[in-house]
Amino acid sequence: KSLSMHSALGVLFLLTVAQAPLGVTAGKILVWPVEFSHWLNIKVIIDELIVRGHSVTVVTHSATPSVKTTESPGYNVEVIQVPYTKQDINDALEKFMKYWTYDLPNDNMIRTSLKIKEIMDMFVEQNHILCRKLFANEGLLEKWRKEQFDVLLTDPMSTCGELLAQKLNLPFIISLRFSFGSSMERLCGQLPTPPSYVPGVSLGYSDHMGFLQRVKNILFQFSQDVLFTLVSVVKWDYLFTEVMDALIQSDLQLCFTIGKADIWLIRSYWDFEYPRPFLPNFKFVGGLHCKPAKPLPKEIEAFVQSSGDDGIVVFSLGSMVKNLTKERANTIASALGQIPQKVLWRYTGEKPDTLTPNTRLYEWIPQNDLLGHPKTKAFITHGGTNGLYEAIYHGVPMVGLPLFADQPDNMNHMRTKGAAVMLDFNKMEAKDLKEALTDVMHNSLYKENIMRLSQIHHDQPMKPLDQAVFWIEYVMRNKGAKHLRVEAHNLTWYQYHCLDVAAFLLSITALVMFIFVKTCSWIFRKCLRRTTTKKKRE
Amino acid sequence: KSLSMHSALGVLFLLTVAQAPLGVTAGKILVWPVEFSHWLNIKVIIDELIVRGHSVTVVTHSATPSVKTTESPGYNVEVIQVPYTKQDINDALEKFMKYWTYDLPNDNMIRTSLKIKEIMDMFVEQNHILCRKLFANEGLLEKWRKEQFDVLLTDPMSTCGELLAQKLNLPFIISLRFSFGSSMERLCGQLPTPPSYVPGVSLGYSDHMGFLQRVKNILFQFSQDVLFTLVSVVKWDYLFTEVMDALIQSDLQLCFTIGKADIWLIRSYWDFEYPRPFLPNFKFVGGLHCKPAKPLPKEIEAFVQSSGDDGIVVFSLGSMVKNLTKERANTIASALGQIPQKVLWRYTGEKPDTLTPNTRLYEWIPQNDLLGHPKTKAFITHGGTNGLYEAIYHGVPMVGLPLFADQPDNMNHMRTKGAAVMLDFNKMEAKDLKEALTDVMHNSLYKENIMRLSQIHHDQPMKPLDQAVFWIEYVMRNKGAKHLRVEAHNLTWYQYHCLDVAAFLLSITALVMFIFVKTCSWIFRKCLRRTTTKKKRE
Repeated sequence: KSLSMHSALGVLFLLTVAQAPLGVTAGKILVWPVEFSHWLNIKVIIDELIVRGHSVTVVTHSATPSVKTTESPGYNVEVIQVPYTKQDINDALEKFMKYWTYDLPNDNMIRTSLKIKEIMDMFVEQNHILCRKLFANEGLLEKWRKEQFDVLLTDPMSTCGELLAQKLNLPFIISLRFSFGSSMERLCGQLPTPPSYVPGVSLGYSDHMGFLQRVKNILFQFSQDVLFTLVSVVKWDYLFTEVMDALIQSDLQLCFTIGKADIWLIRSYWDFEYPRPFLPNFKFVGGLHCKPAKPLPKEIEAFVQSSGDDGIVVFSLGSMVKNLTKERANTIASALGQIPQKVLWRYTGEKPDTLTPNTRLYEWIPQNDLLGHPKTKAFITHGGTNGLYEAIYHGVPMVGLPLFADQPDNMNHMRTKGAAVMLDFNKMEAKDLKEALTDVMHNSLYKENIMRLSQIHHDQPMKPLDQAVFWIEYVMRNKGAKHLRVEAHNLTWYQYHCLDVAAFLLSITALVMFIFVKTCSWIFRKCLRRTTTKKKRE
Repeated sequence: KSLSMHSALGVLFLLTVAQAPLGVTAGKILVWPVEFSHWLNIKVIIDELIVRGHSVTVVTHSATPSVKTTESPGYNVEVIQVPYTKQDINDALEKFMKYWTYDLPNDNMIRTSLKIKEIMDMFVEQNHILCRKLFANEGLLEKWRKEQFDVLLTDPMSTCGELLAQKLNLPFIISLRFSFGSSMERLCGQLPTPPSYVPGVSLGYSDHMGFLQRVKNILFQFSQDVLFTLVSVVKWDYLFTEVMDALIQSDLQLCFTIGKADIWLIRSYWDFEYPRPFLPNFKFVGGLHCKPAKPLPKEIEAFVQSSGDDGIVVFSLGSMVKNLTKERANTIASALGQIPQKVLWRYTGEKPDTLTPNTRLYEWIPQNDLLGHPKTKAFITHGGTNGLYEAIYHGVPMVGLPLFADQPDNMNHMRTKGAAVMLDFNKMEAKDLKEALTDVMHNSLYKENIMRLSQIHHDQPMKPLDQAVFWIEYVMRNKGAKHLRVEAHNLTWYQYHCLDVAAFLLSITALVMFIFVKTCSWIFRKCLRRTTTKKKRE
């Protein structure tokens, strides 16, 4: 018996050894994060890296609204002092969101563009200050050089992580959901995005586009590329040149530097995305933060159970939206009062007058645990990627009230895949919301479709978080992943698109035709002359 | 103690359950294989499927040189009776190889093209006969319909597997190393192959091409596409129309049918390939047949051990080449006599006169076990994909003597990655081979490079065979993988390349310019007339 136990344990040991990743030793990772939901997502990766014994250092700044810098959070923190405050960032963001949610839909294009430019300029300005402060701190850079990190993980929505990696001579990994018009992926990552079936993010198209949609898609891609290039050149190039002492041999320094990334961890997957081409160093890890539901707090569980067979509706517009206008809040509350389900609404604004007893307001809800609860029938969401992936993970059909940024586009993906109804937040009336909710809960197609997406999500060779960590550790143990980087990075744009070859072939063809025509006409004239001479003689 | 054993076994059980793939039950797989090395490769997948409890039925024909049909090999066999024999196939192949190896390098282009066309026509003719015999057998089709297979696995180098899948209404999976010029992947699979950095297979270029190479690459891609389309239309379309009762709504029926594949299992990986774009339903499973070395037979092990510190060289030109010309065999044998290593040469031809005692001839060698032996210093190979992957797996530098088909291109990959020296089989002299061998064994760069490729091969999230089986089982349990198929399949070629959009935008631009010029000239004339009138009046 003892022997058989011994051998059983032996097998167990062998199994464990066999499962341990290839030659991983504890490493050192430097992280350049972005705030808010981006931070929540990258935090999951950081936590997993710590669990696996790695040492993680997060670079943040004194005004960070998201990164915990005081308590000991398991990772090391380096705080760059900046001359703006957390309040400045929050205020700017709130202003931005209010404008986008309420005023933008009624504004004309020029005013919208100017307003967006103004806000963007402010974000870039903050980014700039942070970047300068960082590279001015020679002592810190020297300390990091001595610490010998293995890899840098950066979210390129905040510029300079990639530059830091270059400055410290580290391989680096990008964490990205998308860039507007996919310009960063296309121009810097060399990702092919055939405009005939890869819709530009934010256009709200699916991969099945009509003629006019394809026209608009191409023009959109083109204009975004121009815009991205302009911003890179005007806003960033001189800073990059300064920091790298003009060592970068390229016209587009931002793009050139981003293009050196070893791995791109894209925060989506084919449950969410329309199928499209990608490259060997693009890895899709959408939903890496999702996990099985934990039991709910007692009070919430009691409320959920009180819903009986009707079940519950989970409602959140994300961590960024704190207030709605009184009118919007009342419209929503009165709609929620007309359904038999119990509703859990994450909302910190003033209690709407029309609120009915079936709806409870919460400052915070355990969203993932609620979405994984068997009584949950639907999810009202703003369409942020994190929440949307939790709905996919647990298979909950959605009603989308997208507000800004990628949210309308995200919800459109779910709508075209038949897993959600989408409403116009500003124009919807109470009956629209009520009808949408009734629809997604009673028309079984929505449930079937979201369950199909859920099945796609769960049925992968490797879980998203494991895959993200695998490739980070891969870069650590192999000091990069250059064998996955396409040669396109070393071509100019006209070489990449074969324009030089086309020009050459056209020239040859033209030359051949020219010689042919000239020869023919010469022969023709010769013959003609002879005939004329003959006739004359006759 | 019993308790702890119990719990240990419990954990073991849990581990086993946790590792079991998601919801897989025993399924039924129909296989449409190709002969020779293709069969060896697909056989590994079949064996693994059988181990996992699936039932496999292989469709073959009465003249098969590779598939065992008599003994019980673990899989079911359906033999289609054809009017040609195994001898016919072997003879044709030998003729083909002899021509390619010895005569082709000295032949002019027109004769070569005609000869290759003649041989190809013969293979297509055999394929045709097999296909017709299959679809004429209504009883067999009816039997298969009743048997309700879950998936069909086909090697498209032999046409009709994809048609059989359509006829039986089955999801299907393609196993492919490449098609010439990648036309099948590009035209039927919608794989983007940017000609600026994806070299056409058989050109012998790397991903880093000069201007003239890019010109040739584009012309090659284009000509291969034209050829592939012609062959499809002339040779196959009417048969496809006939079999499917004209149900296929497309001009290019072969391509249209192949394009319906759920998954493409590509028999390579980034250890071998230059990085390039791919699609969500393309999975790279190169080297799936490789496994750790087993102990050698006693006699061979003794010979290997007798090599002392010098080690051994493994030499095989593959299973297809049985004879060399006397002159070539003598050249090779005399070169082998000049190195201190012991050589194991798989060769069934006449014993060369110049053979020395350090070289032994074998009718068959345990190639994988030899390549995995610690005493192995180098591998002389024709550059077939299977052997090449075994060398990558075990990290053995190579001397390539490529003969035909994809072999020169394969070896070129290894050469550009610094893991092999390549020789011209027909022109090399004894000293060339001797020098090449000395070089790969003594210049440590070759060993370092092949070890780097080996590291890339082994350091994947999932082993190639497991990945192949995962996606086959995926298609079985999900009845397809349509969510991985790009929308490009539903676009015409001019839509795909946005030519309609380009024409539209150019027309608009032209129209605007026309109106602008006309307006300007009208205004100009008006002004001019007025001035003239004025002047006249004056």
